[in-house]
Amino acid sequence: MTPIDRRPPLGDRPNAHLIGLPGSRNRLATPAMILDLDVFELNVDTMADWARRSGLGLRPHAKTHKSVEIARRQVAAGALGNCCATLSEAEVLVAGGIPGVLLSSTIVTPDKIARLVALNARAEGLMVIVDDADNVDALAAAAAADRPLQVLVDIEVGCGRTGVVGLDDAVALARRVASCRSLRFAGVQAYDGSVQAIADYGERGRKADERMAHLKAVCAALAAAGLAPGIVSGGGTGSHDLDRARGVFTEIQAGSYVVMDRIYNACDLRGEGQGTFGTSLFVRATVISTSHAGFVTTDAGLKAFATGSGDPVIASGAPPGATYTFMGDEHGRITLAKESDALALGASVECIVPHCDPTISLYDAYHVVQGDTLVDIWPVDGRGHW
Amino acid sequence: MTPIDRRPPLGDRPNAHLIGLPGSRNRLATPAMILDLDVFELNVDTMADWARRSGLGLRPHAKTHKSVEIARRQVAAGALGNCCATLSEAEVLVAGGIPGVLLSSTIVTPDKIARLVALNARAEGLMVIVDDADNVDALAAAAAADRPLQVLVDIEVGCGRTGVVGLDDAVALARRVASCRSLRFAGVQAYDGSVQAIADYGERGRKADERMAHLKAVCAALAAAGLAPGIVSGGGTGSHDLDRARGVFTEIQAGSYVVMDRIYNACDLRGEGQGTFGTSLFVRATVISTSHAGFVTTDAGLKAFATGSGDPVIASGAPPGATYTFMGDEHGRITLAKESDALALGASVECIVPHCDPTISLYDAYHVVQGDTLVDIWPVDGRGHW
Repeated sequence: MTPIDRRPPLGDRPNAHLIGLPGSRNRLATPAMILDLDVFELNVDTMADWARRSGLGLRPHAKTHKSVEIARRQVAAGALGNCCATLSEAEVLVAGGIPGVLLSSTIVTPDKIARLVALNARAEGLMVIVDDADNVDALAAAAAADRPLQVLVDIEVGCGRTGVVGLDDAVALARRVASCRSLRFAGVQAYDGSVQAIADYGERGRKADERMAHLKAVCAALAAAGLAPGIVSGGGTGSHDLDRARGVFTEIQAGSYVVMDRIYNACDLRGEGQGTFGTSLFVRATVISTSHAGFVTTDAGLKAFATGSGDPVIASGAPPGATYTFMGDEHGRITLAKESDALALGASVECIVPHCDPTISLYDAYHVVQGDTLVDIWPVDGRGHW
Repeated sequence: MTPIDRRPPLGDRPNAHLIGLPGSRNRLATPAMILDLDVFELNVDTMADWARRSGLGLRPHAKTHKSVEIARRQVAAGALGNCCATLSEAEVLVAGGIPGVLLSSTIVTPDKIARLVALNARAEGLMVIVDDADNVDALAAAAAADRPLQVLVDIEVGCGRTGVVGLDDAVALARRVASCRSLRFAGVQAYDGSVQAIADYGERGRKADERMAHLKAVCAALAAAGLAPGIVSGGGTGSHDLDRARGVFTEIQAGSYVVMDRIYNACDLRGEGQGTFGTSLFVRATVISTSHAGFVTTDAGLKAFATGSGDPVIASGAPPGATYTFMGDEHGRITLAKESDALALGASVECIVPHCDPTISLYDAYHVVQGDTLVDIWPVDGRGHW
């Protein structure tokens, strides 16, 4: 009873035949996820330059993009590798030849630990995090002494998810890792997702200060115990410039900067009162009904955008002042600002997405465009759960 | 530049190797979508029996399940076919041998119209909806007179999405369809999504009454014009029993009943003060951190559940009173009710999903279980956008 995959491969889907055709952006079967190549490349270079100038490593988070092609370009621009959130993402990145994969989640079940150890045998620079002593023992028992698994101790710094809470506990866990022949203590990870999206630069910094002081204390205690962390990995698009100023991280895990979204567009990322990265990601939707007065209906609803972070923002294709709202699983509504405004049946709009990571996770592919031309299709290789 | 699919086929993923092993449900790599086969089959039979006893056709909506296997079982139990929301779903269903596919969205762009006409050449009983005269003309120009495309006129009955609003306009559009040699006027569709999830049976009925009266008037006007609709398709899991009582529909488009979710579990579906269908769908999550007091952290967050309809409801695996909340894209939190409660690292829980349709759309496969055994894996064939 082997499950049959009935979906056409990406290369056989309608949009694949449009690659290279002038004007093809306007013919894409929708809903479609669009990546503006020029803006994307500028974002990749801007963050890589910033990291270089700041004397910081950059290990961008693939949980945002889930794409081998994007990871490759980040590494080519100078990144140390990629972080990822799931074991299946790690497997896909390693299969795609990406070095330095940091799995920023704990791996705790016997079957997944076996997969992790098997992956480590074929991966260059794979790392995983721990926050539990029994888990350290389980990893140590499964890993091979001649191919040690590199381990970071995860430090709680305000997220309320994973991570060791107490300072002494962190040191004890690092000591336990270091005592295992099949593990290698590589440093610490600390991610505070709770502050990333605070719009004001200064307020974002103040909110994180307390927990960052804790991280500094942990690093000092580790050093005093002879376990100075080689890697201190954390931060994100929202905090990256504040993290530089604090000087505690050796590398930054920013993810969203490559594509941006409504949330991060509202943030002052560098304390300069303006955005630093351009929006390269859009969802393209088509008007499929004009039967009502004052609004039109599109083909992109709750299955085409992740929700929970406001409505999509129309970037192009609609008259000024038009707004986008969700109308159920399959539909969106574009409300027109003036009675004289219109949007024709079959017209398309492109929207900035409310929240990039879970939106990308809805799609199989990026439709990569330059101007009005579809120039490539990149799979969202790490999509799904396995 | 053909895009490369790097993801392992379903049959090569870790969970596939667990099929048939006793206790395998408890070893599934998570997050995983679970379908309880016995409850699912009972739901399929219960609705099919209800439709038979009610003298109504049943054309279940595949936008919920996106699965050829589920569609087959619905047809085997007596369904007329399946509805679907997207052209790619229709293509997948037809490729899977499902007859009587009703595409419940308008198809308006030249490329998609060409695909629709090509699909009609190889599909048995394909139907599409229209709400626009120009669209009727475009379909008529593309379709072949020797293989007419069956068309339903979509009637607005309260959703505020697609559908002809005015009574005279509906008759005029039906007449236009009927006048085209390459089209066949097959009837009308009317779906009121806005009332489906109203918890109280009587209130749900009253809210829909006004628009249902309009639908009756449209049908009468069509009959008077010599265009009596052979098919009047609509309704859903929430309204199906009220729709029977009204006597205007010839067939019901219910979808969610096969799996159920938090929304529909809160609804009195038959006016009997109780649920009629069992919950067959769950998301299984694993505890990946126990480092905090009072709660544990799981591997299932905003990418594992569709949001916007409340939190997941823990169905099994956790101590009584434990609650589930989202903690970002990758994580969930289980808050324990008592200080003495615990959930071990690596333990798994299963949750009733807040909203079934967009949650299923996040997954590649159903893990079909009987008791504690994984018995099959069914692909979510229609997932994605193309």
